[in-house]
Amino acid sequence: MSVEPPLASSPAPSFPCRVVVAVQWGDVDMMQHVNNVVFFRWFETARTTYFAEVKMNELLGEGVYPILASVRCDYRAQLRHPGRISVECSTTRVGRSSSTQVYRVVDVESGQVAAEGEGTWVCFDYRAQKSKVLPGDVVAALERFEGRALR
Amino acid sequence: MSVEPPLASSPAPSFPCRVVVAVQWGDVDMMQHVNNVVFFRWFETARTTYFAEVKMNELLGEGVYPILASVRCDYRAQLRHPGRISVECSTTRVGRSSSTQVYRVVDVESGQVAAEGEGTWVCFDYRAQKSKVLPGDVVAALERFEGRALR
Amino acid sequence: MSVEPPLASSPAPSFPCRVVVAVQWGDVDMMQHVNNVVFFRWFETARTTYFAEVKMNELLGEGVYPILASVRCDYRAQLRHPGRISVECSTTRVGRSSSTQVYRVVDVESGQVAAEGEGTWVCFDYRAQKSKVLPGDVVAALERFEGRALR
Amino acid sequence: MSVEPPLASSPAPSFPCRVVVAVQWGDVDMMQHVNNVVFFRWFETARTTYFAEVKMNELLGEGVYPILASVRCDYRAQLRHPGRISVECSTTRVGRSSSTQVYRVVDVESGQVAAEGEGTWVCFDYRAQKSKVLPGDVVAALERFEGRALR
Repeated sequence: MSVEPPLASSPAPSFPCRVVVAVQWGDVDMMQHVNNVVFFRWFETARTTYFAEVKMNELLGEGVYPILASVRCDYRAQLRHPGRISVECSTTRVGRSSSTQVYRVVDVESGQVAAEGEGTWVCFDYRAQKSKVLPGDVVAALERFEGRALR
Repeated sequence: MSVEPPLASSPAPSFPCRVVVAVQWGDVDMMQHVNNVVFFRWFETARTTYFAEVKMNELLGEGVYPILASVRCDYRAQLRHPGRISVECSTTRVGRSSSTQVYRVVDVESGQVAAEGEGTWVCFDYRAQKSKVLPGDVVAALERFEGRALR
Repeated sequence: MSVEPPLASSPAPSFPCRVVVAVQWGDVDMMQHVNNVVFFRWFETARTTYFAEVKMNELLGEGVYPILASVRCDYRAQLRHPGRISVECSTTRVGRSSSTQVYRVVDVESGQVAAEGEGTWVCFDYRAQKSKVLPGDVVAALERFEGRALR
Repeated sequence: MSVEPPLASSPAPSFPCRVVVAVQWGDVDMMQHVNNVVFFRWFETARTTYFAEVKMNELLGEGVYPILASVRCDYRAQLRHPGRISVECSTTRVGRSSSTQVYRVVDVESGQVAAEGEGTWVCFDYRAQKSKVLPGDVVAALERFEGRALR
């Protein structure tokens, strides 16, 4: 369905974080395929699981959490119910106070990529309500989890 | 929150389609603000309302509907419950078989822009399961609704 | 659609809390009507708005919130998109540490009742993780808001 | 959390239909537990999976589908993210044109029952927009799947 080439920023050699999710009947809309919004719920699941795996909350400290600045999805194939998908996440960029991830939704049965996405999150101090420089510990944890340098 | 400039493609002089939606308690997540996924539900509401206003389904004919190829959201400000937002939609591009829209979420009380988005949909024949050239009638209806040339 | 008579416990003379909500395109499922789950989202919106109006959180004190023990919905008529509904809430019972509410979803255009519901919430101390006797202040506030005795 | 005894109608000796679902981050609400509405999405997943397993659509014929008349949930324990639940469904009653199911949500890791529910669906002719007597084939299929008489 997509009219655009794959994301230039997603030569991600691998996706170190992967969650398998069942497609639910209620994920399907009037067009008889999984609704576009559901993919963002899955991206969020991959993103938060990734954060848990690198112990993001512990590294950022109290009152500081990632906040989503932007996210996109490119739909590649329609999905049906029932089925199971794998939603995957990898970090592709680390900046001063923000970082970019790519996401991928794969149909478990066929192995087909159903969607690709990209999101940028910011290190955010919820008490001060402003962004914060990414601690070096976080950058190190991301690089260790990805197995490569990120900046 | 956004780390990027406003979308270059959104100098939309006006948004001809606008829907007011109540923020629901369940739209808010653990971070105490409206969840990122909810904005895509709102974009969809604006998109489908826009389609209804230009009589898209009647113009496309049986078995042919718009299918979403990609969509993105740039978050500008956090939203709370209770409140009301206005979600707005405008067409910025018409191609051979696809078209691009921009979306905007405005906090009704403060007038603040809470999010901006962009989506591309494709004219899709669900029976043949392939894209189709946009009928001239559709292009004319979009241009009439927008009040300007789109290609 | 319902095979049961209206809830015996809902001779509620009036619904002191009422929220108007737009039906969104994504609220509709494969059966072309508003999905059954959406009604519970609306009930929640009415319930939490009701709580805000009686200043429940301030009255219960820190760390104590209502927790839902049970909720039901009887579907009376199918709803379509677009449209607007009014979701309404009234308290019908106050017990030692719990209270029962009834809900009603009304199609704003036709005035038809689309669904009726009932929910029981418990006064819950989240730190101690156990229920708590309802403070007299809460009972008084509920009775004042309803304009009648509740126990 | 529940203030009521287990459903009298749920001495279901076993649940012949069972679906395992991952708890998603977005299923959790401001109270830090899985939101009450999510359980109804899970019940729906169990209900529609059950229908698929007995080949309900094929047995009912074109234009006839189950429509939900009522559904309830009794919450027994709070659920957190991450985790996996099993949502289970069994038929407890078959009437002239309706049937009742019970549902159960079990925390896969602890084995604890997190919620119990009950729902009644009606055999509904969507073209005529009215209920229809349950075909004998459907009753037989339900009894075969349950392994016992249902009326």
